[in-house]
Amino acid sequence: MPESISRRGVIASLVATAGVAAAGGALAAGAMKAEPAPPKAEPAPPKAEPAPPKAEAVTPGFPGAHQPGIATAQQRYATFAAFDLQGGERTAFQEIMKRWSGVAERLMRGDPPGAIPGNRADAPAGSGVADGLDPAGLTLTFGLGPEVFGLIGKEKSRPLHLRPLPAFSTDRLEEAWSGGHLLVQICADDAQVVSHAFRALRGQAPGLVRLRWSQQGFLGSFGGGTPRNLLGQKDGTSNPRPGTPEFDAAVWAGDGEPSWFAGGTYLVFRKVRLDLPKWDLTSAADQDRSIGRRRDDGAPLSGGGEFTAPDLAAKGPDGRPSIPADSHVALVRAIPMFRRSYNYDYAVQGITAPIAAGPGREDDGHLHEHHAGNSHDSYDAGVLFCAYARDPEAFNRAQRKLAAADRLNAFVKHTGSAVFAIPPGIRPGSPLAADL
Amino acid sequence: MPESISRRGVIASLVATAGVAAAGGALAAGAMKAEPAPPKAEPAPPKAEPAPPKAEAVTPGFPGAHQPGIATAQQRYATFAAFDLQGGERTAFQEIMKRWSGVAERLMRGDPPGAIPGNRADAPAGSGVADGLDPAGLTLTFGLGPEVFGLIGKEKSRPLHLRPLPAFSTDRLEEAWSGGHLLVQICADDAQVVSHAFRALRGQAPGLVRLRWSQQGFLGSFGGGTPRNLLGQKDGTSNPRPGTPEFDAAVWAGDGEPSWFAGGTYLVFRKVRLDLPKWDLTSAADQDRSIGRRRDDGAPLSGGGEFTAPDLAAKGPDGRPSIPADSHVALVRAIPMFRRSYNYDYAVQGITAPIAAGPGREDDGHLHEHHAGNSHDSYDAGVLFCAYARDPEAFNRAQRKLAAADRLNAFVKHTGSAVFAIPPGIRPGSPLAADL
Repeated sequence: MPESISRRGVIASLVATAGVAAAGGALAAGAMKAEPAPPKAEPAPPKAEPAPPKAEAVTPGFPGAHQPGIATAQQRYATFAAFDLQGGERTAFQEIMKRWSGVAERLMRGDPPGAIPGNRADAPAGSGVADGLDPAGLTLTFGLGPEVFGLIGKEKSRPLHLRPLPAFSTDRLEEAWSGGHLLVQICADDAQVVSHAFRALRGQAPGLVRLRWSQQGFLGSFGGGTPRNLLGQKDGTSNPRPGTPEFDAAVWAGDGEPSWFAGGTYLVFRKVRLDLPKWDLTSAADQDRSIGRRRDDGAPLSGGGEFTAPDLAAKGPDGRPSIPADSHVALVRAIPMFRRSYNYDYAVQGITAPIAAGPGREDDGHLHEHHAGNSHDSYDAGVLFCAYARDPEAFNRAQRKLAAADRLNAFVKHTGSAVFAIPPGIRPGSPLAADL
Repeated sequence: MPESISRRGVIASLVATAGVAAAGGALAAGAMKAEPAPPKAEPAPPKAEPAPPKAEAVTPGFPGAHQPGIATAQQRYATFAAFDLQGGERTAFQEIMKRWSGVAERLMRGDPPGAIPGNRADAPAGSGVADGLDPAGLTLTFGLGPEVFGLIGKEKSRPLHLRPLPAFSTDRLEEAWSGGHLLVQICADDAQVVSHAFRALRGQAPGLVRLRWSQQGFLGSFGGGTPRNLLGQKDGTSNPRPGTPEFDAAVWAGDGEPSWFAGGTYLVFRKVRLDLPKWDLTSAADQDRSIGRRRDDGAPLSGGGEFTAPDLAAKGPDGRPSIPADSHVALVRAIPMFRRSYNYDYAVQGITAPIAAGPGREDDGHLHEHHAGNSHDSYDAGVLFCAYARDPEAFNRAQRKLAAADRLNAFVKHTGSAVFAIPPGIRPGSPLAADL
């Protein structure tokens, strides 16, 4: 078939391009384009039979001490997907790590993901959905849940701090989007690139892992400024900056960890649903006092600019603390973790297990209880909270304080929760977690 | 409160900026930013009391013969939301048109959306979620469903071609995402700008309209080339080009329409779910023959480039038609409509009413029937098909042909459907559909 010969030609040239990019160490940056930009109105001459594509390009993996997608400048779109190992977990684990590592390194270079194992030989080596797209800063980041180490017979290699998160008094968790054996975090500046990568990784799953949940988020293009969450507030002001000693100390695995985990970290993932209709009916002053910062510029209510340290001792003209003691900022400060969260807004399409509505659920006697649409509960929007930390206990301590007193609790429901150990980066030619 | 005074100051300056932009006729293009770009580490001096914000800026609406978001260069992210009128439909209709028109013109200028009617006076005039973001090409486009004209006592003004779509033999429609009295199409190059606009419009709804369904789509950044759908194929090659007589004849309301509808059009919306796991296990040649084009470059299988006219008489070396008679391209060509579709990929988060799985559902005896995840059916991805047309019958004719014979039917399920009359653009100072 002329068309399939032509496709093979393109693929062969991609593999060749990939080799060059790999030799240069390019990672998530090559602007390979698989198609010509200007539309041609006239027939191209038939191409000579090209060299067949190589079965597997020799590639360097995602080399380095750490996985990408953590210290990487945050991209605008993300999918998080959790998978569970199927029977024969140890073998399945090794096989999926190998497959995903290969797919990931190809995708991050902008190459097609490669064949689906067991698929017919004449099937394309990828969906083609991202042909002509820049990789758009794509990063793929993989994690291992607390149950994995038992399932694969590696309890002795369990990372020191990897255990299920404790229950918090304000949890409203749904099974549908909690837990998971393996996590994939897919981030890029183009949602179609994210979709392409998700599909490619999912295509490797049959017989090995089963998709458990997925979540999709975005961040506005704030041009390097601190992005705003759906409360309208700047979110991430007090984050440690990648590349600083503070960041390294907060994030990367520390003393006492098994040697294979050096360069790893932990990810705490929480689906945090916000009651935005209620928030929008709250006074500007009360909104700011819930956070402890001014929405406009992110400055603490004690004064200054966004990056001024909050002064919890400062008092207003009425003699009361400028920053309320139960505000978010007053309760959680200087937590040794790096937040890399996304906003989500599913409007009404994403409700698989709605929180029960009806009498008794409303937290207060607010006059605007019954909103448009299918009640408050049908509007599912909020934060996909992600925190990378040397020890998830940093998150737990903060969350316990918030659960006990945070003004924001009136607007916040944690409906999903998971924790993962994030293995270190890989050595050239080895899959993720090769030393486990 | 110092923080709320500061916010008012920002809002006042926004309103002033808006006036200038409006006077210049800027629409959906002004790069107004509500916050300073560089983070300031030091306290700013307290601001003097600013002028209070004007209650309502005098604005030109979205002037012009047509609504934006149709001939507009397609943006990368979209939310489609359908609402139903609540009791007292005529009054509700007039009020929501007025409110939405005001919100829309403010948002398309990059201004805050304004107050939620009936909200407390000290609430902010918007969620702040897009403060600091460019409007990102935001357009808001509104439509009226077939039931509206009866409900508001305007049967005599019903657009000539506005009636429910007929049933097609391949329909697998779900009530959950079909129909609707009013449609809002929100498009921008930034998903956070889209989310901000959706929330602002929704905030005006209480007591007037009720959210019925919403859908969210994306398009990769193909740099002006034809975008690819999730089949990997270029989609839109044969679209008429905005600004051409062909486009105008295909899209804008024609003879026999009521005078108030001059400059209007119709939108056919279909949620088209694609069986991507099955597609990915199909040979490259069969994929191309289903479409009638080469995935690589979009050229018809009869030869040439993307924009070469398909030659249905051309035969291959085997003496059979190069473009199969039951391919998508062979069945539907030169349809007088303008497609402005988006891809969607909800992974597994969006399933509220899954298509029944189990024996009897599979269309063929494919070996790879049981895929990873929660079966095929849990992966909800495909096309939010949107066609603007002078007469929706153009779509109906094409869809009848496809339903009868299309090779793609094995991969395609239409699970949502709606049709709307799209009123013309507005006159300065008047709401949408003012002449209805």
